[in-house]
Amino acid sequence: MSKITRFSVAPLASMTRRMADVASGRATPDLVIGGARVLSTYSERILADREIWIAGGRIAAVKPAGTHKGGARFYDAKGGIIAPGLVDPHIHIESSMVTACAYAEAALLNGTTTIFCDSHEIGNVMDVAGVEAMLEDARHAPLSIFLTVPSTVPATSPELETAGGDLTPDKIAALFDKWPEAVALGEKMDFVPVTMGDERSHAILAAALSRGKPVCGHVYGREFVAAYAAAGVSDTHEAIDRDIADDMLEAGIWLFLRGGPPTTPWHSLPEAIKTVTELGASHKRIAVCTDDRDADDLLAFGMDWVVREAVKAGMTKEQAWSMGSLHGATRFGKEGEVGGLGGGRRADLVLLSDNLEPISTWYGGELMVDQKKITPLLDECLTDLWRYPEAAYHTVKLPKELKLTPELPTTTVVANTIRTELPGIILGHEKITLEPANDWQTHFDRHGLCFVTVIERHGKSAGNVAHALLSNFALKSGAVASSVGHDSHNIIIAGTNEADMQVALRAIEANQGGVCVVQDGKVTAMVPLPIAGLLSDKRVHVVAEEVQKLKVEWEKAGCTIPYMGFNLIPLSVIPEIRITDKGLVTVPQMEIVPPFEAA
Amino acid sequence: MSKITRFSVAPLASMTRRMADVASGRATPDLVIGGARVLSTYSERILADREIWIAGGRIAAVKPAGTHKGGARFYDAKGGIIAPGLVDPHIHIESSMVTACAYAEAALLNGTTTIFCDSHEIGNVMDVAGVEAMLEDARHAPLSIFLTVPSTVPATSPELETAGGDLTPDKIAALFDKWPEAVALGEKMDFVPVTMGDERSHAILAAALSRGKPVCGHVYGREFVAAYAAAGVSDTHEAIDRDIADDMLEAGIWLFLRGGPPTTPWHSLPEAIKTVTELGASHKRIAVCTDDRDADDLLAFGMDWVVREAVKAGMTKEQAWSMGSLHGATRFGKEGEVGGLGGGRRADLVLLSDNLEPISTWYGGELMVDQKKITPLLDECLTDLWRYPEAAYHTVKLPKELKLTPELPTTTVVANTIRTELPGIILGHEKITLEPANDWQTHFDRHGLCFVTVIERHGKSAGNVAHALLSNFALKSGAVASSVGHDSHNIIIAGTNEADMQVALRAIEANQGGVCVVQDGKVTAMVPLPIAGLLSDKRVHVVAEEVQKLKVEWEKAGCTIPYMGFNLIPLSVIPEIRITDKGLVTVPQMEIVPPFEAA
Repeated sequence: MSKITRFSVAPLASMTRRMADVASGRATPDLVIGGARVLSTYSERILADREIWIAGGRIAAVKPAGTHKGGARFYDAKGGIIAPGLVDPHIHIESSMVTACAYAEAALLNGTTTIFCDSHEIGNVMDVAGVEAMLEDARHAPLSIFLTVPSTVPATSPELETAGGDLTPDKIAALFDKWPEAVALGEKMDFVPVTMGDERSHAILAAALSRGKPVCGHVYGREFVAAYAAAGVSDTHEAIDRDIADDMLEAGIWLFLRGGPPTTPWHSLPEAIKTVTELGASHKRIAVCTDDRDADDLLAFGMDWVVREAVKAGMTKEQAWSMGSLHGATRFGKEGEVGGLGGGRRADLVLLSDNLEPISTWYGGELMVDQKKITPLLDECLTDLWRYPEAAYHTVKLPKELKLTPELPTTTVVANTIRTELPGIILGHEKITLEPANDWQTHFDRHGLCFVTVIERHGKSAGNVAHALLSNFALKSGAVASSVGHDSHNIIIAGTNEADMQVALRAIEANQGGVCVVQDGKVTAMVPLPIAGLLSDKRVHVVAEEVQKLKVEWEKAGCTIPYMGFNLIPLSVIPEIRITDKGLVTVPQMEIVPPFEAA
Repeated sequence: MSKITRFSVAPLASMTRRMADVASGRATPDLVIGGARVLSTYSERILADREIWIAGGRIAAVKPAGTHKGGARFYDAKGGIIAPGLVDPHIHIESSMVTACAYAEAALLNGTTTIFCDSHEIGNVMDVAGVEAMLEDARHAPLSIFLTVPSTVPATSPELETAGGDLTPDKIAALFDKWPEAVALGEKMDFVPVTMGDERSHAILAAALSRGKPVCGHVYGREFVAAYAAAGVSDTHEAIDRDIADDMLEAGIWLFLRGGPPTTPWHSLPEAIKTVTELGASHKRIAVCTDDRDADDLLAFGMDWVVREAVKAGMTKEQAWSMGSLHGATRFGKEGEVGGLGGGRRADLVLLSDNLEPISTWYGGELMVDQKKITPLLDECLTDLWRYPEAAYHTVKLPKELKLTPELPTTTVVANTIRTELPGIILGHEKITLEPANDWQTHFDRHGLCFVTVIERHGKSAGNVAHALLSNFALKSGAVASSVGHDSHNIIIAGTNEADMQVALRAIEANQGGVCVVQDGKVTAMVPLPIAGLLSDKRVHVVAEEVQKLKVEWEKAGCTIPYMGFNLIPLSVIPEIRITDKGLVTVPQMEIVPPFEAA
């Protein structure tokens, strides 16, 4: 068995005669999937009694059931629904802490066969080398992975944080020119600078637009939509309610409705979809996407689940599946290749139950998941996963000695603390007066505090460490730490004491990346992330188990916000106060404030 | 005043900051169109009380009416509907016998601002030079003209006819590589060879597909649809009824519903649209198009009329206008630039009455048609039209002496005649026994016949002339003749006597192309077509008047089929019998048969 990748199916240009021969009945298909209903994303109907003829990994024809007279392999769909594989138009693989190859396993189990990913995180750590390593990874995956080139690295400026990457307009242009799978500019997160006319931001937009590449967006606030669209941004996955969704649609922006686990703040689909269900807009320029997923949420909350959420919100099954496949493909100019069961398209197919649960998945005509289990062929693809370049395994660069906690104040001071609140995105700026005490624990007990520390880890500073206090995080003891800390991915540690925080830091250093919980000097849970400090090199179910264990220990430690909120604490573009390796940063003022001020 | 062309609006990449400034209110728009309702092709709704801010020829924003505080030019839409300019996804300019620049005038009057044309006819006459001349012409026009590269030149083979052009796969590839406006492969008319796997046809498909260019189609017969789609063809404008339209849609083919004057066989929209109105298919992959228009039909039956026909057939106004604008733009990957009123798009706009009649048209933010009349700015664009290269004016190359009628048979013979029938596409093969007679007129009177003669005019043969007889054409006297004779555009003459046919031939030669009627040795009507023997070099209303005069004389002469059917008589790909410069050709046998056989 050879490994299946995107390139296992030859370009249509090289096989049009074969396709015509098979569709005309002059040659035998490789595979016929019979006894099927067909979900047409083109017409938004379910068609009864069909069979699909497949040759060379592509769809030669969809025919009335019983047309094929033998000679081909036959798969009996037993009356199930055959639909095109799902197309996720906006996803960050790094959020799942697995490689692209490993991600493919979960995607195929969910009926997803194409994704448009934005490798923004690895770009923040490793610059162009990181983006290119992930592109190589993607080329080895049994999944069609296209890139939307990271557009906003670093997220802010060297004055406010130390990042590993600096993707200039020239570097972005070079990525477009080198990698044909770089189909768009990734989410242009700095929407305020974009709408204000910032020079570098617009040079990056121009690098994409002048090459005919569309620009993906990320914007909050109805007041920004018009200028953002006028600047050339043409999709968004951040519509959080009906009215901004409606504004975006009318501004010519494709809407990607994001489904996230319902307990998270990311599940904006149910509100945003009301532009259709309440305001009567056509759904033809609306797709659904996942954006980010914890590894252990990948299977329960995949693209298939998001599609079913769209049904729950009022779309028909046919409309919803189109929003999960054809529409995203159309947005990126790939509808001639994926997203529907048309002639000549890749045979990326899913067998569905009547409630749109994926049962089996074919990728390029090869059966990769059958009856909800991976096939030996897919298993083979996931053995000896492609290995990242050696440099990717050495990205946590720390001085030998670091002090992780601040000096105990000897007078009354006002602490600028970061107040964590569920759901964990907006963080409040809480000023707390600390009367002198004998130890930190007294302060913690009095005010519900703990330490929070960010350590520069790219080897780009003289060992920057920033200390501050977290309020309302409710960490009872020990420490939690992560080498994923958006967007610069310096190391963030919350803790109640220096010793446990040191253990956490050195555990991450030893693994060259990871997320961990430490209690009483011992690591009680660890997800090692040796690749760029962001990714595991294990298979997805292994990482999912590690993440589940971590979540158990995380909760036991008392933390009020989950890991995915914790690692956003350094993201100094969201109000009101964050911490980077340079210190506390207020947003939107973008000013550095001291952790303690005279009372 | 400088002339307005597609290039008068700078690429968005070069002006994103200006757009953001205007949309944010930091800079003043050039023009505000206020007091408008807006037809949104994105959401398929009409939105009340809006104003459109325009800067640099692009849409900066659509705002609530009254938002702009002054400083910009203001156009009061007085409550009318502002919609995006129409996008015609399939059109042959040559059918209107005018240049691209001249065509623009009619297009703008109809609210059309973008067309995707296939310069198949001039390619048949002048090969690459003809296609490139028309591309230059198009670049000088006040209209956005994209090319779908002629794919099937010649229509048949040198054994069956002598063409002026031979567009090989290499020449087609070179056109794609040289001209960025070559966005697709034009209608691949030889659908039988395509579905049968013909080598040259597939090499041409590969030239397009390997460059990421989609392929436009032309197919009749449900049995061909699957193989045609599998070979990579992804649009069609030839769906003549509900069922084939439905088949095509399901095969992944974009449908362009063709509206033609209702008295012609080209008006297939009312039947094909039933895939939506009767079979429940989504209209999201359906557009409307014009395909071909006589010059004098351009204004009465433009894209706007086709859109209104779609409304008449059951679509909402919003859906129909989307089918006339956004959907065609989306099919060709241009929806980021035209087809909707999104931010950053070209300000190609139409002011409409409530029944979708275009009143005013802006092209790139410039008012070109106001209150149904062209503005001085458009008039300036149409003065001193771009002149084709000298070679284009010398394409009718004839020997000095030619005999245009056959010898009178001296014995009883069976004539293989071409029977003309309305609507004029299919031509019957009628065998008529001719008893000896004293003159041809006796035969004509007995059997309802006249002469039909095709003369090679590309200077590529030793003066090929083919003679035969037409039955049921009902020409009473004189001759009718044309240098437009699909697809090779040799000269075709029908006549009752040698003398009038000679006058017709030499009149065409003198003008280096044209269509004429001759009676009693005199030209009674003539449309001179000096450019490639296909196009006038005059403005569209002048040509329309000439065509109307021609039609009057044509009808007076008695001809049963109109000019647009007549010039298809040499098209040797449609059953049952046609005539080329090589003689009578039977279709689909593709055999040459003699005009007269022994009885």
